[in-house]
Amino acid sequence: MNQIIKELIERKSVRAYRDEKITLEEKNMILQSAIQAPTAGNMALYSIIDVQDQQLKDQLANTCDHQPFISQAPLVLLFLADYQKWYDMYCAYHDEDFKLEEADMILALEDAMIAAQNAVMGAWSLGIGSCYIGDILENFEIHQELFDLPKYAVPATLVVFGKPTPQQQNRQKPPRFDINDMVSVNTYHHKSMDETKQMFIKQSGRSEQQLQSYIQAFAKRKFFAQYHQEMNRSVRKIIESWTK
Amino acid sequence: MNQIIKELIERKSVRAYRDEKITLEEKNMILQSAIQAPTAGNMALYSIIDVQDQQLKDQLANTCDHQPFISQAPLVLLFLADYQKWYDMYCAYHDEDFKLEEADMILALEDAMIAAQNAVMGAWSLGIGSCYIGDILENFEIHQELFDLPKYAVPATLVVFGKPTPQQQNRQKPPRFDINDMVSVNTYHHKSMDETKQMFIKQSGRSEQQLQSYIQAFAKRKFFAQYHQEMNRSVRKIIESWTK
Repeated sequence: MNQIIKELIERKSVRAYRDEKITLEEKNMILQSAIQAPTAGNMALYSIIDVQDQQLKDQLANTCDHQPFISQAPLVLLFLADYQKWYDMYCAYHDEDFKLEEADMILALEDAMIAAQNAVMGAWSLGIGSCYIGDILENFEIHQELFDLPKYAVPATLVVFGKPTPQQQNRQKPPRFDINDMVSVNTYHHKSMDETKQMFIKQSGRSEQQLQSYIQAFAKRKFFAQYHQEMNRSVRKIIESWTK
Repeated sequence: MNQIIKELIERKSVRAYRDEKITLEEKNMILQSAIQAPTAGNMALYSIIDVQDQQLKDQLANTCDHQPFISQAPLVLLFLADYQKWYDMYCAYHDEDFKLEEADMILALEDAMIAAQNAVMGAWSLGIGSCYIGDILENFEIHQELFDLPKYAVPATLVVFGKPTPQQQNRQKPPRFDINDMVSVNTYHHKSMDETKQMFIKQSGRSEQQLQSYIQAFAKRKFFAQYHQEMNRSVRKIIESWTK
């Protein structure tokens, strides 16, 4: 196994950071890794906001489902699905009225995620941990105002970076589902309920008896939760704002 | 610059392949890179279909905006935004009716893209090139039937892999926008029309005089094109099918 695959496989999320700056050189390497990522038609349908202001970080720690470690991260990058530059150029050279649609937003979101993962792996190779904050999809109106976003630039993901504490370095990476449960050949394999339960049992290390309360607690925390209602509302707003 | 960042920066898309198999060991490394990627709440809201059947590849070459190189790629991976396993588990242990919403689809799409980029970089480290096929977002109903997709598993992206021909190895990577045009500090910088033009001039190496016809030709090919109308229609269908 080569070093790159080893790091792709070993990389885990890091949510507690040593009190240590990320140097300008390190940041530059992370950002270069991001902006050289593949992008649809080389259009670069994304942009990055480097959130340095402590007040902004504190606000994000609040608006992104109250996660204080966001405000303590030495590097906070907001990845935007961003079609604005191309829209502006098209407008400059095209006479008829037109607007962007859902597909354009999805393509831009995809570009943003590809770039984000390059940033994550670039950082990891420098000994810098990171964590995706999906909760940036919440509170769209607040984030739109906070970062002065134009119509065709919307939050895709937030990634926070920092050098891991020893505790985080030693933390075990949560086990993934088995490769045979993630990959099928030629057609989708919609598992029976029994197969699905077996997949979760294998991944979680729980017994069939423990599975029900584990899933119910997980669902309560992740799905039937207030933050999730807010994310649903906010993402509808993002799509509405983009397509109106 | 370490080897990983070097490869993150140098990686370019590859669309022509030597007539050479990807070994089982290579494929396994690529898939392991993918399934160990970060995922929201370790939920792995995606799955992968390894498209081996030549007839399926030929159909994809057709349904994805007529790109014959898809059918010639030795490895074709379809990344699905896939909430189905969690939905089935929630249903098994939850009495009330509920459904997934747009935000769930976006989170799942993001998971799929992160995993896809890990696959791309894992492959690259083995000397295997790849190309994202965003056109998999078109013709949703056909792809849904072709791969027997359940309600909560929808195409996110297609990636085709193969060992680059010498011509592809020597091909220059298309230049990206300048890092200062991609990254802003603390707030979005909505460029003036003049700044936007300068950004495109710098990236494309064209003069201001050439810019108008370049952008008009690009827009005609990429935006005011039949495939783009189809993508718009299809992505609306994807969202509708997920949320209905």
